[in-house]
Amino acid sequence: MSSTTTNWVKKHVISLEDFTPTEYDTVLNTAVSFKDVLNSRTKKVPALQGQVVANMFFEPSTRTRSSFELAAKRLSADILNFAPSTSSLTKGETILDTAKTYLAMGANIMVIRHSHSGVPLNIAQEMDRLKTGVSIFNAGDGLHQHPSQALLDLFTLCSLLDPKNPRISLLEGKKIAIVGDILHSRVARSNINSLLASGARVHLAAPPTLLPQLFADTVPSVYHDRLFLHWHLTPALEDADFVMTLRLQKERMADYLLPSLREYHQLFGLTHDRISHCNTDVKILHPGPVNRGVEISSELMDDPRFSLISQQVTSGVAVRMALLYLIGNLK
Amino acid sequence: MSSTTTNWVKKHVISLEDFTPTEYDTVLNTAVSFKDVLNSRTKKVPALQGQVVANMFFEPSTRTRSSFELAAKRLSADILNFAPSTSSLTKGETILDTAKTYLAMGANIMVIRHSHSGVPLNIAQEMDRLKTGVSIFNAGDGLHQHPSQALLDLFTLCSLLDPKNPRISLLEGKKIAIVGDILHSRVARSNINSLLASGARVHLAAPPTLLPQLFADTVPSVYHDRLFLHWHLTPALEDADFVMTLRLQKERMADYLLPSLREYHQLFGLTHDRISHCNTDVKILHPGPVNRGVEISSELMDDPRFSLISQQVTSGVAVRMALLYLIGNLK
Amino acid sequence: MSSTTTNWVKKHVISLEDFTPTEYDTVLNTAVSFKDVLNSRTKKVPALQGQVVANMFFEPSTRTRSSFELAAKRLSADILNFAPSTSSLTKGETILDTAKTYLAMGANIMVIRHSHSGVPLNIAQEMDRLKTGVSIFNAGDGLHQHPSQALLDLFTLCSLLDPKNPRISLLEGKKIAIVGDILHSRVARSNINSLLASGARVHLAAPPTLLPQLFADTVPSVYHDRLFLHWHLTPALEDADFVMTLRLQKERMADYLLPSLREYHQLFGLTHDRISHCNTDVKILHPGPVNRGVEISSELMDDPRFSLISQQVTSGVAVRMALLYLIGNLK
Repeated sequence: MSSTTTNWVKKHVISLEDFTPTEYDTVLNTAVSFKDVLNSRTKKVPALQGQVVANMFFEPSTRTRSSFELAAKRLSADILNFAPSTSSLTKGETILDTAKTYLAMGANIMVIRHSHSGVPLNIAQEMDRLKTGVSIFNAGDGLHQHPSQALLDLFTLCSLLDPKNPRISLLEGKKIAIVGDILHSRVARSNINSLLASGARVHLAAPPTLLPQLFADTVPSVYHDRLFLHWHLTPALEDADFVMTLRLQKERMADYLLPSLREYHQLFGLTHDRISHCNTDVKILHPGPVNRGVEISSELMDDPRFSLISQQVTSGVAVRMALLYLIGNLK
Repeated sequence: MSSTTTNWVKKHVISLEDFTPTEYDTVLNTAVSFKDVLNSRTKKVPALQGQVVANMFFEPSTRTRSSFELAAKRLSADILNFAPSTSSLTKGETILDTAKTYLAMGANIMVIRHSHSGVPLNIAQEMDRLKTGVSIFNAGDGLHQHPSQALLDLFTLCSLLDPKNPRISLLEGKKIAIVGDILHSRVARSNINSLLASGARVHLAAPPTLLPQLFADTVPSVYHDRLFLHWHLTPALEDADFVMTLRLQKERMADYLLPSLREYHQLFGLTHDRISHCNTDVKILHPGPVNRGVEISSELMDDPRFSLISQQVTSGVAVRMALLYLIGNLK
Repeated sequence: MSSTTTNWVKKHVISLEDFTPTEYDTVLNTAVSFKDVLNSRTKKVPALQGQVVANMFFEPSTRTRSSFELAAKRLSADILNFAPSTSSLTKGETILDTAKTYLAMGANIMVIRHSHSGVPLNIAQEMDRLKTGVSIFNAGDGLHQHPSQALLDLFTLCSLLDPKNPRISLLEGKKIAIVGDILHSRVARSNINSLLASGARVHLAAPPTLLPQLFADTVPSVYHDRLFLHWHLTPALEDADFVMTLRLQKERMADYLLPSLREYHQLFGLTHDRISHCNTDVKILHPGPVNRGVEISSELMDDPRFSLISQQVTSGVAVRMALLYLIGNLK
């Protein structure tokens, strides 16, 4: 595995905005090796033995937290779980001071999820200013980025196309639709970065309240000829190779951005009928947790001919092992 | 240990209703071996190395959750703890989808506690329908079953009678009283299954609101000549070899099923005085946590001549190691 | 490491009131060895392999709980985390019964934090009465004691003065100020014990509501010539070698013991300006979590020339490893 890491230079994983094609391919490549580890009998490697991974989740999470925890365990790291409800947060400590405490205890990698955009970046900058060796991993910050989710989506897609040698160029020219609450989705933001970098054509579909025309300005203009915004579902699905649908936060209703879940499902929910407009071997992704009958019909979600949702979760462990391994073996 | 497992076929442990005498004996036997492991210096075996045990407790629990966690650790498994308050449950995911997520992450055994009867069975059926290899362990579901509790009770009783070779036939003809809120107790239900299967005579005692006459119909008629229902304590205790008292849920008062804790204690609480009707070497069991002065007097609970409560907890780790080992080494 | 432990006899660590100079030095000495372990590549020793450390925190805590957890992991112990919110506490079990449950499960060391003074001592006495081998570690009880905090403070101070050979006598004659809510601080109580035992001169400074004159009577009279009480900050700081400032519980305002945080900071908050009265190479300690701008200014807290706050946290892991090792290898 040593050969794949020689060119890795990122100390922190905060955003995919600055990921290079080589970096994407290194992650995909390394994840293949770890998928093999996960399929072996022992399922463990001593790659991070003695290192401490602090799981700092300031927002509730099942799958992402557990996925990082399992990835760290299978790399033989020691894990510290930070549980906000029973923590010093109730005592008024700043997040930066909490991070410094874990640093002083010996944390080597901090995996941070926070409801405010920018918190992981702030901590990473402060850690660098203090010349510490610690790495910060953004596990989802506000509306900003969720890089490991987009990388596991990328791994799921590229592995489907070439299991032995997944690489970003496999997606060149593919049509990929992203459907749902684009405006408030860190998953969408990270996926837009990686998919545009791969050469895919990215079609976004959502009601105008969740996808304002101005959204295109958040994407570098060099990509504008491959980015398309739709306020209706059908043109986004037409001949699509892959469809990613996003979780709908029920709070959006209270914000008057949506009339009802039922109307949303009628207009933007994925069903067998709807995806008949797509390429015949289209595959569906969803970052989970799913609101069945809202973003996607129960029948379609459970149809193994189309759904990649389980594969995404499985990819998550391998991809997070790869990322922790790469940032944990720097220098 | 390999010889004891060759005949084990149960993939899931949901209920004791269908346990065979051979299966009971296999569990008791295997637990003896693990008791030896727990008394050794290293206290660990690599039996489940690389396997993932997901502890999914949708209801609060100290002892059962910790007991399973410790059992899994001592078998060298990796453990994922699911904490409902900080989980996707708040995001509206179905329990089945949560289970599928842990499956996709690589869980081999899911230990599930839920306040609704039938949840573990539902998940097990779905996992089988999907042809997954995952095993489901019911750690207590609603009013239905709590198989590991009854098996550790069985191990505690049989080990007392023959520490080297505990077997279910040792209880044949013994008089065992179960006292308390039978109607609402999954512990009672599982114990009634195992004790009747062993050939013991089972005497139930409770106020009529907590033990309706119809309760007997829930037990196969082949056992009716060894099952006795009492609405007073004394006849149940008379010449009893063992007395199991059950935890009283204080909510029962609010349901108008009981007048007061004090009256309950006066009528059904165990005391030194009361158990003088029993066999002289009678032993008392309680699944915990105990309401001191309600189900049992503080003095009796702390009297090592009678109380097996600590031994039950100790048995719990060995029995759960045995069960996890057996279902984790199938096929 | 074996040579340092031959004379260790304490089974429980409840309070520093009865610590001998030899015991302090044994802890300091052993912690040096573990600091080396923490600086090594593997960071782990098998010293407590097979032993179970139960982390029983009945009060919220980030740093102390994580520090004990990491210390135990690096000694290769198995850890059981007791989470009060999801535990049997909601079911009315007594704390003593919870402790006995963990004992019966196989816990060798229980690390206990509780909001009531005396809980760890009570449990230790009960465990001894029952002739169990279990050790109780007080991780902070009410207003009483927080021995591991004072020992890590001691290690931080003595290591600064002689990193290779920290010993209590290095503090002889030093002037050490403790500033803040002395009356309600278990950290202060434990530190007063260790610092007076070392031969240091201890100057306490607080508003009279938080440091009544009678407080001196809680300290053995043999130390009175080295203990000084001040109701103003300046005389305590004058020529001080070290200043420990304590966390201010914001609840004190509601108790009418303090007018406002702002006034408190003006009178007792540490700033660069204030500490100009101290010895020029004065160092500042704080047990954390810090209320920035209350006990200490943000600028001073972040100034590495003065602040030992990070070193304290780092010392914590080594000192707790030392203590767990010493009580885990008794007899």
